[in-house]
Amino acid sequence: MLRAMQGIEPLLYGIGIAGVAAQAAAGVLDAGRKPFDLFGMVVVALAASLGGGSLRDLLLDRTVFWIADQRYLIAAVAAGLATFALVRFVRLPPRLFLLPDAIGLALFTVSGTQAALAMGAPWLVASLMGVITGVFGGIVRDVLCNEVPLVFSGELYATASWAGALTLIALGAEGVTPGWAALAAGSMVLAIRLGAIRFGWRLPVFVARG
Amino acid sequence: MLRAMQGIEPLLYGIGIAGVAAQAAAGVLDAGRKPFDLFGMVVVALAASLGGGSLRDLLLDRTVFWIADQRYLIAAVAAGLATFALVRFVRLPPRLFLLPDAIGLALFTVSGTQAALAMGAPWLVASLMGVITGVFGGIVRDVLCNEVPLVFSGELYATASWAGALTLIALGAEGVTPGWAALAAGSMVLAIRLGAIRFGWRLPVFVARG
Amino acid sequence: MLRAMQGIEPLLYGIGIAGVAAQAAAGVLDAGRKPFDLFGMVVVALAASLGGGSLRDLLLDRTVFWIADQRYLIAAVAAGLATFALVRFVRLPPRLFLLPDAIGLALFTVSGTQAALAMGAPWLVASLMGVITGVFGGIVRDVLCNEVPLVFSGELYATASWAGALTLIALGAEGVTPGWAALAAGSMVLAIRLGAIRFGWRLPVFVARG
Repeated sequence: MLRAMQGIEPLLYGIGIAGVAAQAAAGVLDAGRKPFDLFGMVVVALAASLGGGSLRDLLLDRTVFWIADQRYLIAAVAAGLATFALVRFVRLPPRLFLLPDAIGLALFTVSGTQAALAMGAPWLVASLMGVITGVFGGIVRDVLCNEVPLVFSGELYATASWAGALTLIALGAEGVTPGWAALAAGSMVLAIRLGAIRFGWRLPVFVARG
Repeated sequence: MLRAMQGIEPLLYGIGIAGVAAQAAAGVLDAGRKPFDLFGMVVVALAASLGGGSLRDLLLDRTVFWIADQRYLIAAVAAGLATFALVRFVRLPPRLFLLPDAIGLALFTVSGTQAALAMGAPWLVASLMGVITGVFGGIVRDVLCNEVPLVFSGELYATASWAGALTLIALGAEGVTPGWAALAAGSMVLAIRLGAIRFGWRLPVFVARG
Repeated sequence: MLRAMQGIEPLLYGIGIAGVAAQAAAGVLDAGRKPFDLFGMVVVALAASLGGGSLRDLLLDRTVFWIADQRYLIAAVAAGLATFALVRFVRLPPRLFLLPDAIGLALFTVSGTQAALAMGAPWLVASLMGVITGVFGGIVRDVLCNEVPLVFSGELYATASWAGALTLIALGAEGVTPGWAALAAGSMVLAIRLGAIRFGWRLPVFVARG
């Protein structure tokens, strides 16, 4: 992606920061039923927005991204605090962050998969790293709120991420340039996720014969 | 173990893959009460089967084992999916995986302890790494299912692991060759765990006065 | 700190070991409502006392402190076992460990922040590492007990830690010698935490307009 899309790199960086902020804000809204104080909300915002990328970096033995560049951390804290303050005065619709969150999911999926491929990870591992980057933060958020993870039973979310990660890897193996592969994969994540929100697409649910 | 048991290495590798698959399948069965979808079940299967070894590798700063060799990951995903599909048609008895799970516990305890010793970890740390490798996956599985970890209150499980790890270390310190020490330690884990299942052996439970 | 306070280093090391033991003992008491067995209690004690420093070391890619020096691990296990045994005979008042716990919080905040600064972490990251070192163990303890983390809603705890970490960084930037900066920052953590216990200081709680 880096070489093929040199000109739009600052744009991608900005989208990345915005994606982190969106997930932090959505984290605070999702945790809103709990009687947490300011600190608890900031922790939930940080876990939701930075958790996935942190686990990816730990597993791949890379420098954790928000330690290497603390602007991600600042964006997450600021978005969490702003949401905490805003909801005292304004009623934020719960669906407000669905679009930025979906864009963040697409971007994190692509960047997580690319990071793993760049370190020589095999294809299944690389696709899983993309999914972890996009999804794990929401799992930690729900565990901290003492809830069953939402992503285990709702509309397609992780599946959109996994489909995009596999697309990215397949296109790369077919010789498509990284920039176009990233664009196609990200668009696929976004399309599946938005379709799932609009049309209620879901995975089959576990039913044990008993 | 490696030098002393050269000939049976492929066998041990196969048992390791089978142990991962058994813990993944058991993870899906254990989570069966929850209305998780396919993705949720795969995550639970991955956490249950790969969580312990992953934490060990992160703590010891080794390459995470399923990133170095993705066959473990493939085995876990495949076993999770197969169990998810099977239970729609067949009633799997919950005790079906107790024996493969116990074999996996024995193997992971031995391999976890050996990995830590090989990196120069002191004895208590090394034994704890064996226990973490065998037990931590089940703890993550239960946390994801929003349950109190089963291993905190059931029949002897972690204790079997710890006893085996300490045996392995003591035999090694006494000059027993690694292969025989591993065999003795693994057999001890298996014997204690199977005895606990059969006879209901338990640890004392916390009772606070007051 | 190291150069400026050479003479008192053994004292600081001793306080560190005592802080770990205090958090392990407090972890067992806090988990006391749960019907955990001996192993479950030891895991909770280890998570409560070693969890924060472990996450800090993983994120900063340092050798995990209790793997480098297993005396921390021994102190945590011993304190957990002793508390488990003691409560069968004596009624330990729940507030018994509040002071040692507060001293541990002050020490871990200072040492965590200093460790991050020494590795070149930017200021916000470094202060967060101090907070993680002091607070994350309690969050893991509560997650393992299937409770909402206490530190998300109780009297000032993490806030005391964060204030101290920021003070340490600000004093260092102003040219204050590390020893005095550490002393001032640690005292601030201790003062805020003890004040919060005594006077019930709290952060504002999240209230969504609906």
